[in-house]
Amino acid sequence: MDRRRFLATLGAAALPARRLRASWRDGPLRISPARLQSQLERLSEFGRPPGGAFADGVSRIAYSDADVNARAYIVSLMREAGLTSRVDPAGNIFGTSRPSDAGGRGSERPILFGSHIDSVPSGGNFDGDLGSLAAIEVVRTLRAAGVQTRHPLEVVVWAEEEGSAYGRSLSGSRAMAGQFPADELELTVNGVKKADAIRRIGGDPARLEQARRGTESFHAYLELHIEQGGTLEKAGLPIGIVEGIVSIHRYDVTVRGVANHAGTTPMNERQDALIAASQLILAIREIVTREPGRQVGTVGKMEVSPNATNVVPGVVKHTIDLRDLDAAKLARIGDDIRGRAREIAAATRTEIEIARVTDHDAALAAPAMQEAVARAADTLGLRWTRMPSGAGHDAQMAARICPMGMIFVPSVGGISHSPRELTAWADCARGADVLLETILLVDKVSPA
Amino acid sequence: MDRRRFLATLGAAALPARRLRASWRDGPLRISPARLQSQLERLSEFGRPPGGAFADGVSRIAYSDADVNARAYIVSLMREAGLTSRVDPAGNIFGTSRPSDAGGRGSERPILFGSHIDSVPSGGNFDGDLGSLAAIEVVRTLRAAGVQTRHPLEVVVWAEEEGSAYGRSLSGSRAMAGQFPADELELTVNGVKKADAIRRIGGDPARLEQARRGTESFHAYLELHIEQGGTLEKAGLPIGIVEGIVSIHRYDVTVRGVANHAGTTPMNERQDALIAASQLILAIREIVTREPGRQVGTVGKMEVSPNATNVVPGVVKHTIDLRDLDAAKLARIGDDIRGRAREIAAATRTEIEIARVTDHDAALAAPAMQEAVARAADTLGLRWTRMPSGAGHDAQMAARICPMGMIFVPSVGGISHSPRELTAWADCARGADVLLETILLVDKVSPA
Repeated sequence: MDRRRFLATLGAAALPARRLRASWRDGPLRISPARLQSQLERLSEFGRPPGGAFADGVSRIAYSDADVNARAYIVSLMREAGLTSRVDPAGNIFGTSRPSDAGGRGSERPILFGSHIDSVPSGGNFDGDLGSLAAIEVVRTLRAAGVQTRHPLEVVVWAEEEGSAYGRSLSGSRAMAGQFPADELELTVNGVKKADAIRRIGGDPARLEQARRGTESFHAYLELHIEQGGTLEKAGLPIGIVEGIVSIHRYDVTVRGVANHAGTTPMNERQDALIAASQLILAIREIVTREPGRQVGTVGKMEVSPNATNVVPGVVKHTIDLRDLDAAKLARIGDDIRGRAREIAAATRTEIEIARVTDHDAALAAPAMQEAVARAADTLGLRWTRMPSGAGHDAQMAARICPMGMIFVPSVGGISHSPRELTAWADCARGADVLLETILLVDKVSPA
Repeated sequence: MDRRRFLATLGAAALPARRLRASWRDGPLRISPARLQSQLERLSEFGRPPGGAFADGVSRIAYSDADVNARAYIVSLMREAGLTSRVDPAGNIFGTSRPSDAGGRGSERPILFGSHIDSVPSGGNFDGDLGSLAAIEVVRTLRAAGVQTRHPLEVVVWAEEEGSAYGRSLSGSRAMAGQFPADELELTVNGVKKADAIRRIGGDPARLEQARRGTESFHAYLELHIEQGGTLEKAGLPIGIVEGIVSIHRYDVTVRGVANHAGTTPMNERQDALIAASQLILAIREIVTREPGRQVGTVGKMEVSPNATNVVPGVVKHTIDLRDLDAAKLARIGDDIRGRAREIAAATRTEIEIARVTDHDAALAAPAMQEAVARAADTLGLRWTRMPSGAGHDAQMAARICPMGMIFVPSVGGISHSPRELTAWADCARGADVLLETILLVDKVSPA
């Protein structure tokens, strides 16, 4: 569809949509906060640490037993909501409203919305989970209220958003967008190929190409997600409207020194890979922070070899993760890091190799979708702000094939990817209500 | 025995010992270099990386399958050398020359000599292996030549010299010296207690106290070992006479920050445990090197948590290993590190906990033993120097119960605890010859 037209027609469509509902209700529809909470609590049990509680977070790594079992729970919830589920060749779970129930006329493209349920190791219970369960809850609420949408509604729970032992994130949505290179199926961890892992969750790697969807597949894509930063909480606002998702540049660094005995190697004769890596890690932080802006840089993963108390480290491997809306700035920072690495290698008599790995391009939310979210929040009397997303999301892949919009809700303390990740139950419900309202607005916009 | 008397009588005893041999040979006895080499090569196969060669080093971690299998090989070599082997409750392998064969008169205390065969991860094929196999080869050579010693000869291959997953080194020799705390048996790694690990190698942890030996148990202890540093090679000398083994102070450091999302957490709001740890690692090096001396400090082992590319590190754990002959200097360095850690914790908004773990006291070689090694080397026409050992050795535990001496041979490039660890075959043989000659000299000294 033509996005300018989408935007132009939205203004005209929004009012009739509200009028339609006003005929059978006094105000906007609301999801059930209690049901959403109880389902988030139930979902949190899949991958919970042994003997732990909700507050102890979750390790629901993609393709793990916890992931497999949680996905079965998702399918059961979809069934309860009247959705017909299927798993595509990439392992994404789609739940489709049958035309007869949802009023879709067959000729209209579905509105797609959802998120993911895999987590980082020792992650929290809101990242992905909220958007996935809120999507199902929205369908259930609409169905219970007998609301008929023009476009079929389709819920998606994407496979492997966070990345797994195979080190690639957004696997499911990348496959949908045709961004999944075939050789990625051959990645092997502990003798298990990524293709095998995808089979574990019901995917069919041999038919992976069939997971790809074209630009005519969906009317729009929407995703509710926790902010994962502290901006909304500090500003005291319940809703964030995402302008776009930052570009991510990732590197794998290998520092090679010489492993040697910790007792017999004089300090001035060492070629200590961990000393060099420590210098580089501090240099990365200094380079990232020395110019103004919201760019961030992180060394999150590190392995020391041989990793023994009494051995001078011979090899250190670590990652670099750089993020900003401006890819040119990231490239400049990457160059500066390489330059500093050369100096450190020379000074420490080590070799430092920096390999560019996966990049994610920045992805903008469609202006019409941003506008729809703003009007939905206004309808519900909720204050909002526009903001970029520093985190990557499946939405960035969806943006490649259809208009994309994202709704953020506040993260307490800005903490995420941690068991301490928390969003107030009331904010979870507000976000789901905005999602529902936005879907109704977007549904009324004629693409023609 | 009285060490002054030992030293005094050594001078008188040395000459008759040489005369004794001169009656049946033209010059000192020599071990078989070819046999020693072939046995070192065979031993290297236990724990060799799959598809690797001798030059690819060895991972023969204590209690592993490789260790268990290599120990069986040692027992077979002892048998061939006419030694009767037994495994003590700590897992140390002792090979005893029967009095009837070796001429021991029963009333004399044995001369104990040997080393260890466990390795660090990705270690070399000489550390410990040389001293263990040379000890057996010495017995074989003496037996073949029909040499009768006054004192029974006893070969020892100590258990877990390097430390294992349980993080404690010198386990076998500490048990012998009564330095093995009972609660160490309860250390658990992946559900396996250290007591279970000791059972795997034929020890009997329930009787561990019976592995302890008193000060009347042995006439003397000798250990041949590679230097593991570059001093001998640089000086062009084949033999090092160890004056003493340095004191080792070890610490476990835990840096606690806050795990958070790598994309959404602004740089100035992070509490990044890896940034703090990197600062501390560089500070440790600076503190260790700022005063003159041969002290060394190493951070060799490090674990990052949750260790994911897209998560700001929440917890970093790492070790510190400090070594010097002067324990007071090490204590001062430890205090300085704690002080700097407090500053770093405050600046990075992290918590840094530094826990003192195992210490090894400095251990001096007996002057008489040093003198015996010097005379043995002189007899063989080999030049030598005196030097401290920067590495810990089982010899430091043996020194607690009897006069101890150590012989060093050169390490090519000073490299050790690495697959590149190398000692020339000729130097291996020279060291074994010096060990043999020293045993004969020490045997002639009357303790009374």
